[in-house]
Amino acid sequence: MLQRGLRWLVGHRQAAPLLQTLAGQHLPPGSTWMPAQPISVSSSSHLQPDKKDYSLPNASWSPIMVEMYNELMEKTVDGSWTRLPGSWRSMQFIKEGDLAKIAKAVPVRMIEDARLFLRITEVEGLGFEYVIFHNGSEKKCVCLFQPGPFLEGLPGILHGGALGTMIDTTLFMTAYNSANAVFTGTMTIVFKSPVILGSVVRLEARVTGTEGRKVFLSCEAQSSDRTTLFAEASAIFLQMK
Amino acid sequence: MLQRGLRWLVGHRQAAPLLQTLAGQHLPPGSTWMPAQPISVSSSSHLQPDKKDYSLPNASWSPIMVEMYNELMEKTVDGSWTRLPGSWRSMQFIKEGDLAKIAKAVPVRMIEDARLFLRITEVEGLGFEYVIFHNGSEKKCVCLFQPGPFLEGLPGILHGGALGTMIDTTLFMTAYNSANAVFTGTMTIVFKSPVILGSVVRLEARVTGTEGRKVFLSCEAQSSDRTTLFAEASAIFLQMK
Repeated sequence: MLQRGLRWLVGHRQAAPLLQTLAGQHLPPGSTWMPAQPISVSSSSHLQPDKKDYSLPNASWSPIMVEMYNELMEKTVDGSWTRLPGSWRSMQFIKEGDLAKIAKAVPVRMIEDARLFLRITEVEGLGFEYVIFHNGSEKKCVCLFQPGPFLEGLPGILHGGALGTMIDTTLFMTAYNSANAVFTGTMTIVFKSPVILGSVVRLEARVTGTEGRKVFLSCEAQSSDRTTLFAEASAIFLQMK
Repeated sequence: MLQRGLRWLVGHRQAAPLLQTLAGQHLPPGSTWMPAQPISVSSSSHLQPDKKDYSLPNASWSPIMVEMYNELMEKTVDGSWTRLPGSWRSMQFIKEGDLAKIAKAVPVRMIEDARLFLRITEVEGLGFEYVIFHNGSEKKCVCLFQPGPFLEGLPGILHGGALGTMIDTTLFMTAYNSANAVFTGTMTIVFKSPVILGSVVRLEARVTGTEGRKVFLSCEAQSSDRTTLFAEASAIFLQMK
């Protein structure tokens, strides 16, 4: 599977120099990796257009989500803000060269048919609908997030783990694009109010400081009109060596 | 949709007395709920046997996962441990009467075709394969978790948000079954080592104290042989009024 996966990587990233690094990866002592059982994947996943940009408006987006998207798009015109494309796998948004650095610290491996957790359901509107904008000079990101009905915790309410995943992702994009940090060290989330499925959540994350390899960040998740605080979070990410 | 959803609830839980409570729910001030766009759901989801127990071994479980499951099942014989069934929606594992209490604090609503976040993919082995065992007298839970390839973060590595979701769920089941607490207040996760997709994670959560309505808990996520610590977490849950 690794061999096939490596070929897959070449096809997607032309990252030939990286292959030897990855192929040389060994499991750390104490690792519990064992061969997975054969997994049946529906044929549709093979046809998935994995270069599709998933962070463009689609028919499931509510009018408020589209309005907020358009407002942020206007801020990209002068170059102060950038819309980050919505990828199918993390290797699509990790810059050339960084994956090799990451592979020195983490036993990354290529698994065919794997996908980014936030792309777990392919049907528009059912799972994570989101778009993230980055402001380089202010070292912050704004994420618009419309949770679908497959992200349920209590009936009709967003699962805390799904909100946590969106917070983690917004923090990651801020840490990586502002400070070259990719590893989540510590994350604390204080849940303040429940999020109703189908509503729009506005997340804003920023770098609050650095100390050696540590990058400190904060994140707030609010209602679209910014009158209700759903959650606030702080995190420490670690820069690559 | 609410009307249809309420009928759906009746069919599933015979919870007629609850309907008026839920029907009387209003959105809190500042809520940003808006009608969702029409969502297309594949017909297969309607056929989903939602009374299926998803926490029984299936063909995707690795030999280690099955072995650990069998060891824990042996501990259920004397009644000290209980295997918690794997549900499709949260209302299946919330006890009769508690949903009405929850509805006083949280704007729960019935959305047809919604599902528990951990059931987001229906294909065995691709997403969250897990089973949770509860020990009432020790106020703790053990969860066996085998993450599939759709839970990816960095290539081949479990997404921090997916591990956080499993930690949150194990904490929730501990808090609810040991101390009648259902609302996550604060959760802190310290990520220690990456988890390789397909490996087995053993989570153990316990109640560490109470103070008024607050229930304090801790959780550790380790490799199956307990030699590698993947993450440790602490949390405060709130009891229902």
